[in-house]
Amino acid sequence: MAVTKSAVRSGAYYDSLVLMQLQRALSGLPGVLDAGVVMGRQANKRILEQSGLLTPEALEAAADDLVIIVRASDTAAAEAALAQVDALLLQRRSAAEQDYQPQSLESAAQALPAARWLLVSVPGRYAGAVARDGLRLGRHVFLYSDNVPMTEEVELKQAAAQSGLLVMGPDCGTAIVNGIGLGFANVVRRGPIGLVAASGTGLQEVASRIHQLGGGISHALGTGGRDLSEAVGAVTARQSLDLLGRDPQTRVIVLISKPPAPAVADTLLRAARRVDKPVVVDLIGYPRAVRRLDHLHFAGTLDETAEWAVQLAADQGHDSSDLSPAESETAARSIAPGQRYLRGLFSGGTLAYEALLLLQDYLPVVYSNAPLRKEHRLASSMVSQAHSIIDLGEDEFTVGRLHPMMDNDLRIRRLHQEAQDPEVALILMDVVLGYGAHPDPASELAPAIATARARAEAQGRLLEVVVAVVGTDQDPQNQAHQMGRLEEAGARVMSSNLSAVLYAGRRLQALNRSTPDAGFRPVELSALHQPLAAINVGLVSFSESLESQGAPVVQVDWHPPAGGNERLAAILERMKRK
Amino acid sequence: MAVTKSAVRSGAYYDSLVLMQLQRALSGLPGVLDAGVVMGRQANKRILEQSGLLTPEALEAAADDLVIIVRASDTAAAEAALAQVDALLLQRRSAAEQDYQPQSLESAAQALPAARWLLVSVPGRYAGAVARDGLRLGRHVFLYSDNVPMTEEVELKQAAAQSGLLVMGPDCGTAIVNGIGLGFANVVRRGPIGLVAASGTGLQEVASRIHQLGGGISHALGTGGRDLSEAVGAVTARQSLDLLGRDPQTRVIVLISKPPAPAVADTLLRAARRVDKPVVVDLIGYPRAVRRLDHLHFAGTLDETAEWAVQLAADQGHDSSDLSPAESETAARSIAPGQRYLRGLFSGGTLAYEALLLLQDYLPVVYSNAPLRKEHRLASSMVSQAHSIIDLGEDEFTVGRLHPMMDNDLRIRRLHQEAQDPEVALILMDVVLGYGAHPDPASELAPAIATARARAEAQGRLLEVVVAVVGTDQDPQNQAHQMGRLEEAGARVMSSNLSAVLYAGRRLQALNRSTPDAGFRPVELSALHQPLAAINVGLVSFSESLESQGAPVVQVDWHPPAGGNERLAAILERMKRK
Repeated sequence: MAVTKSAVRSGAYYDSLVLMQLQRALSGLPGVLDAGVVMGRQANKRILEQSGLLTPEALEAAADDLVIIVRASDTAAAEAALAQVDALLLQRRSAAEQDYQPQSLESAAQALPAARWLLVSVPGRYAGAVARDGLRLGRHVFLYSDNVPMTEEVELKQAAAQSGLLVMGPDCGTAIVNGIGLGFANVVRRGPIGLVAASGTGLQEVASRIHQLGGGISHALGTGGRDLSEAVGAVTARQSLDLLGRDPQTRVIVLISKPPAPAVADTLLRAARRVDKPVVVDLIGYPRAVRRLDHLHFAGTLDETAEWAVQLAADQGHDSSDLSPAESETAARSIAPGQRYLRGLFSGGTLAYEALLLLQDYLPVVYSNAPLRKEHRLASSMVSQAHSIIDLGEDEFTVGRLHPMMDNDLRIRRLHQEAQDPEVALILMDVVLGYGAHPDPASELAPAIATARARAEAQGRLLEVVVAVVGTDQDPQNQAHQMGRLEEAGARVMSSNLSAVLYAGRRLQALNRSTPDAGFRPVELSALHQPLAAINVGLVSFSESLESQGAPVVQVDWHPPAGGNERLAAILERMKRK
Repeated sequence: MAVTKSAVRSGAYYDSLVLMQLQRALSGLPGVLDAGVVMGRQANKRILEQSGLLTPEALEAAADDLVIIVRASDTAAAEAALAQVDALLLQRRSAAEQDYQPQSLESAAQALPAARWLLVSVPGRYAGAVARDGLRLGRHVFLYSDNVPMTEEVELKQAAAQSGLLVMGPDCGTAIVNGIGLGFANVVRRGPIGLVAASGTGLQEVASRIHQLGGGISHALGTGGRDLSEAVGAVTARQSLDLLGRDPQTRVIVLISKPPAPAVADTLLRAARRVDKPVVVDLIGYPRAVRRLDHLHFAGTLDETAEWAVQLAADQGHDSSDLSPAESETAARSIAPGQRYLRGLFSGGTLAYEALLLLQDYLPVVYSNAPLRKEHRLASSMVSQAHSIIDLGEDEFTVGRLHPMMDNDLRIRRLHQEAQDPEVALILMDVVLGYGAHPDPASELAPAIATARARAEAQGRLLEVVVAVVGTDQDPQNQAHQMGRLEEAGARVMSSNLSAVLYAGRRLQALNRSTPDAGFRPVELSALHQPLAAINVGLVSFSESLESQGAPVVQVDWHPPAGGNERLAAILERMKRK
């Protein structure tokens, strides 16, 4: 009958790789049926229980105790296996330590001065201190460790940002710098696509798919999953976007993350906008209505992200949706200093709604009588505030009055009202043709537009009027004829709501643009371009990976401060920081 | 100096078209600078105020009073204009009434028995009663009127659904039935694309764009914006999907709406799934992570909706993403009756997250230790419930233990645990390759998969194991080699997470499918296929539109019941319903 025996070692630190190797070695001993080697935490005890390996002794173990369990065919085999634990641990340790290993970061840095990168994979409660030492020595940090406190992450990243250094992580599983993989990294072709990811396996999936599709990677920078929390504020992601934006090897950028905090998403997308290259964005599960906004491309899945990036890279990063030179020139000319607001006067409810949705990506707040969020409801539907979209087909306007598609009176009155406001730069309208609608809307709207523009011009303002004409060449009013009349009146006329709204969005954004301070010292491009060399503290397998990729690496012989005694360690750390 | 004068008419009903015509006629009289003709509601008084037309008399008017205002160059001109109001009203009325008009629905129905459709555009408070009469007479109803109470909408639609009749609206602005536009409708080519829309201008924009792109419309059915509310439960939208699903002229269906209530979205998408044709869905501002699920295609903008529909129609509605015949055969074979759950065992956090996102569209609830919504959190990460996805890379599993990409032990234990559950049908896993990961994961996972499958088979169950292998041909483990090993062990192996998850979703959905009752009597196809003829109650311009399209129409000479006296009208209505 099978017998389960256990042993507990208190107060000693072992690398998790060593523990896995011990468990395997025990499982391979004669008569052993199963073995477990874990730290004595609650979660681990539940796992032991599921495997039928939980003994009363293991149940009593403290969280920092090492628990070793063996299930064997008989008592003798179980005891023989446990008796070998110390010998096996020593054997693993001596194998790992056959070469000289410096005992401190300082001596490692002296041994390999070219190492600009520090890899940290020690347990989370020690990792912050090691990373801090790395920053003090001017090294970029790849911080694989998880279970690092949030406050420590904020502190590390603030310090790094001020020094022009990167902290990828904590809980950063993967990166590729100048062709060398850090942590978990697939071997992929080099090419013009740069990745920034707050998601380790997201980065790996996309990098692998890009390779499978024939594309290649310039650099892939991880940020750690919490980088996009409000507390951290996407420091590393913004540094990385900026860095890849300046990197001549990178022609297309991919940005991957689980859905960030909304305020952070906004900051991040603004940072992506500042980059002068196509950016494919997959905020997984945070999809956007529109698939493209200028040079930002919103993908819905990791696969699609990869496909899009490869396609854009093949297009040489060619991008054509920005304002044309002529448009930019118009933008610069004639607009009076105070003109900065959009006013939308819609007859179509859904067209107004789509406009509000699309404008979200251009203007932070757009007020409406039918707003997306109730806090953006106009105090009075009769009076616009800042950027406003009015749906004139709402019930409030149509009791005893024809729908605005049939009766232009109310809209024309409102057009003149908006045009008199010196802060208004652009008026956006829809004109919906077809049976049932006004038989010739341009005959009334075109003269009104011409008059409104002329009055504004007389007061030294350029009033842009943008009109989407919804209809067909077979409509009784004839779309082309209506568009021609409106154009003659000085309006910019489009045949779809989407085009009209996106044009208005770009124009208004250009008028309201400010160049915010990035809030960090730029990371030097040499971080990416020098041949990668690194100091590794923690998992030996990460050093082995670097060696097999031909990258110089020095492994630090790390042990927890004060042998794992946390109070003593805290005192030592405080002394060091003075 | 300009003078503003007003007059008030109490207790009379006028069509809004008549009011607009009166306002225009007044504006055209000698010396008149501006005129307003509105009902005395608050909103209208604010509009008069904005235009500088509000007089003390108008301010005092009751909501049902007709208010007439004239601003003229002098008092004489203003008074002369007001003196003509009654003559102008009479003139308009006699022009509109030159032909014989039946006084009731019943006599209209006798006059034009071929009229299967009733158009209603009288004021909202009267519209429900007219529509109810139409349903009693077995007519489909196009209900343009807005301001109809929600309870009336629910009542009308329930009655219609039980009788196999459609109620489009209230507040339905547009439809195209058998080539004839109702309400506001663009003139578009006929073709194989059928539209269902809870959004009037959304429908018009998409129909127009389809025409502009060279495509054509079979029928376009409106539902009214509130159809997708929880109270109404998408009755008309579901009837319409069902109807177009059976219509041989329709090869591709487009479904457009502002974001519905989440429960209704679910019902609606299920109804769309039951249709055996490609469906392009634009729930504007309710975008989906994935762009395609079997025959559903999710668009983000109205423009994209049109483009996609045209493209699918050009492809002859060809669709290839359903389970292949071989797959369906496997699905039918060997699955034991109780097998119905999915268990996902992931090493990649983002891959687990993407799986949860994608599965939302196949399985109503998937539990996880890292769920999308907190109510779907597993009670214990150690024990799966129903459909579950476990992220084995979460911090709870990695204290003192290597990441599951490096150490397969925990995952193999869990695999056996899940495989023993007789309700489990499919196990989904990721295997992430590359530097840092396990040097040969298939060498451990393949035998475990083979064993788990063999054990299940010995107990009369077919256990499917689906594995996504993330990596490249240049990874140290070699993707093709790893995939081969896992396939030999009987796993279905894919090279991307997306493919693996979508396959699992389709399989599980097939196992958990039930055929719910549609909950309504199907509308007969003749509703679409007979030459359209209609009875019109309300706006005369709608009759004129139908006539100009060559559709027979009879206009009812409608007046509010009891001359607008609401108490008397209510009594009459109650008597009628007995």
